[in-house]
Amino acid sequence: MSRQEPNGGGNGAADEPIVVDRDRLRTDIEENAAFGAVDADEGRGRTVLTGTEANRRARDRLVDRLEDAGLAVSVDAVGNVVGTWTPDSANPDASPVAAGSHLDSVPEGGIFDGPLGVYAALEAVRALQESGCEPRRPVAVVSFTEEEGTRFGGGLLGSSVAAGQYSIADALAATDDEGTTLETVLEGIGYRGDGSVDASEWDSFLELHVEQDTRLEERGVPVGVVSTITGIVHAEARFVGEADHAGTTAMGDRTDALAAASEFVLDVERAGREFAIDGADAGEPGTAVATVGKNHVAPNATNVVPGAVELGVDLRDIDAETMGALLERTRRCLTRLESDRGVETEFDVELEVDPAPMSDRCRDALVSGADAAGVESVSLHSGAAHDAMTVSRVTDAGMLFVPSEDGLSHTPLEWTDWEDCATGARVLAEGIARLAAT
Amino acid sequence: MSRQEPNGGGNGAADEPIVVDRDRLRTDIEENAAFGAVDADEGRGRTVLTGTEANRRARDRLVDRLEDAGLAVSVDAVGNVVGTWTPDSANPDASPVAAGSHLDSVPEGGIFDGPLGVYAALEAVRALQESGCEPRRPVAVVSFTEEEGTRFGGGLLGSSVAAGQYSIADALAATDDEGTTLETVLEGIGYRGDGSVDASEWDSFLELHVEQDTRLEERGVPVGVVSTITGIVHAEARFVGEADHAGTTAMGDRTDALAAASEFVLDVERAGREFAIDGADAGEPGTAVATVGKNHVAPNATNVVPGAVELGVDLRDIDAETMGALLERTRRCLTRLESDRGVETEFDVELEVDPAPMSDRCRDALVSGADAAGVESVSLHSGAAHDAMTVSRVTDAGMLFVPSEDGLSHTPLEWTDWEDCATGARVLAEGIARLAAT
Repeated sequence: MSRQEPNGGGNGAADEPIVVDRDRLRTDIEENAAFGAVDADEGRGRTVLTGTEANRRARDRLVDRLEDAGLAVSVDAVGNVVGTWTPDSANPDASPVAAGSHLDSVPEGGIFDGPLGVYAALEAVRALQESGCEPRRPVAVVSFTEEEGTRFGGGLLGSSVAAGQYSIADALAATDDEGTTLETVLEGIGYRGDGSVDASEWDSFLELHVEQDTRLEERGVPVGVVSTITGIVHAEARFVGEADHAGTTAMGDRTDALAAASEFVLDVERAGREFAIDGADAGEPGTAVATVGKNHVAPNATNVVPGAVELGVDLRDIDAETMGALLERTRRCLTRLESDRGVETEFDVELEVDPAPMSDRCRDALVSGADAAGVESVSLHSGAAHDAMTVSRVTDAGMLFVPSEDGLSHTPLEWTDWEDCATGARVLAEGIARLAAT
Repeated sequence: MSRQEPNGGGNGAADEPIVVDRDRLRTDIEENAAFGAVDADEGRGRTVLTGTEANRRARDRLVDRLEDAGLAVSVDAVGNVVGTWTPDSANPDASPVAAGSHLDSVPEGGIFDGPLGVYAALEAVRALQESGCEPRRPVAVVSFTEEEGTRFGGGLLGSSVAAGQYSIADALAATDDEGTTLETVLEGIGYRGDGSVDASEWDSFLELHVEQDTRLEERGVPVGVVSTITGIVHAEARFVGEADHAGTTAMGDRTDALAAASEFVLDVERAGREFAIDGADAGEPGTAVATVGKNHVAPNATNVVPGAVELGVDLRDIDAETMGALLERTRRCLTRLESDRGVETEFDVELEVDPAPMSDRCRDALVSGADAAGVESVSLHSGAAHDAMTVSRVTDAGMLFVPSEDGLSHTPLEWTDWEDCATGARVLAEGIARLAAT
């Protein structure tokens, strides 16, 4: 990809080149990182669970920064925060171009996962304002509630409400481990607003996020434009055998739930490998992955033959047909284990999310924006779920990745160079300008 | 085996047949079962951990019952209780024949495991007294402290001190999960005595126990005479891979500790089966067993490739050579997994107990005692550890099993018919009489 002049055409008629202020963005992310900061041996971590004091302070600061930039801020019933810039050039009734991500974190998570997408969107707006860009549409900066799902369930909560997939009432009634509702904690921090952000009314949505993988780092490319966000199945597989004395029960008299579960773990791994090979393309590894990440054994004593095992299964691919085949293969393995080993099995799908292709219009805006900024980009799939996945069900969505050092994420060791953050924000600004130009 | 007249010769010159009082034995066991009784949906359970109030009351009652029968009671430094009957016929300086078991239980354990062996020994003494039997040796009824190892470590504590394998000081310094020492809790219940029972000074030791398996029940034989108590290895196998995002880490880029551990679980099972087949004899299944009973995964989240796994491994056989081969095979599997899967592994043997053959003299006494009582018996190995295993290292030891309904043990469902309990006590009395006759 050749380097081009900044603003090489079609970006919404900016008077000046779009210039992102790296240090301003860095200050925003670093000041946000102070809320819920954890004492890490290495790196820089934070714990910002929805509805905590750290979350309140992070939200308050975002609202201040949105207002500083002249954006009109609203908070919906589940605490989604939206700051809207309606420049004179825009038709205030036109559907806005939105961009953003989330401010909550996993426990002892990193400082970029989420906040980078929110503050890069704000920085993009500021850069557009300063460039004299004249968008025809309002531009909205969005921070979704409870993306990580650490405190209130399965994740992507705020964007699911915004996309109409989860009712406000159900979301507000969601409880944490102590039985406290989301509504109670949002009221406690002053972020139980009214109504609901309606993502279907947006012209489009862009999300900048750290890659959480090493593909950009390995290729030395600063920006990835996401093609498709993977489909995900989370399931619990249960095996019931018979708990017996490990000393007095002959090998032939056992129904060992852990041995059965171990065959299953290996078959899931084998399935992931085979589907990844089947899906491989032009030297690129396939996108299928299959994991057993969780294992609970009962009674879990060295001298007792395991009587019951529960496994957490994670299956992903960007192709819906492959997802179906993976799921089918997994169920077949359980049926075989029932007849081979005499265990009883159950399989409960707890989460089933279809693959989410990003819209061509958004991808084109980001790719041509990167070209205009003279930034090399590459097309990548996302193996992780993001708010853009949920939003993509109701409007055009696009995603941008910047490199994660060593692919690390959800740890204080998560790191993205400030220069890469700024490059991502710059391409995001170009993309927003293009989408808002018509 | 043909039915014979009671006391068919060589039992120590009893004037009358040895008659065990089934109801007296039942009362002892049922009254003991009241201490630490648990509210079970089905069956009858108790929780009697060493040093608890339930344990104090169970001990107090045993002391009373020993004294009621005219036995001289002593308590050693680690709380082992010994009641000695020195009849006029005996040389008071002769090494005694001892018999007994333990009063502690696992949490929500059964009412027979342990107490049957203690109270059957007392009942045997009472029956010998009433029969006019004239033993040449004193007879000791023993209750060992902390056989189960539920509160203070690895089990067989009291008998290990009595056999000189564990120092009094180390045993007293053993701590429970709260950091309280054995010494403190024994002082608290008034059972921190002086000195140590020295099992090496016993002529012999017999232990009656519930089988905890179904071999007697399946054959319809009321009594099993133990040939050998199995050797046991407990080890912790650790696998360190790399915790990664289950969505963003391609199958080929993983070092999945749970997948490696699953191969190991299956190889341990396969080894147990193969060694059991190799050791099978005349239609009897072999005695080797190999189990992975415990599994701890980190971080143990459905969407994270497991970074580390710890497994609890249990290997047993009655043949020392087979035990060595099992252990060697297990280590080889880990080496293979290191090179095949790139995981790091560790293997820590936490407990290694050699197989413990019972003495011919004790087995003969029990077999001929059963014959004399007209009770069919069969030779069996013990797949579980017992105090008799520890004692057998320093003096002649023998064990007797009575049937466990459905092989259940360590649960309120543990059950042995009162008639079987009495039959066991009767054979035990015959065995004691024979050993004490010379």
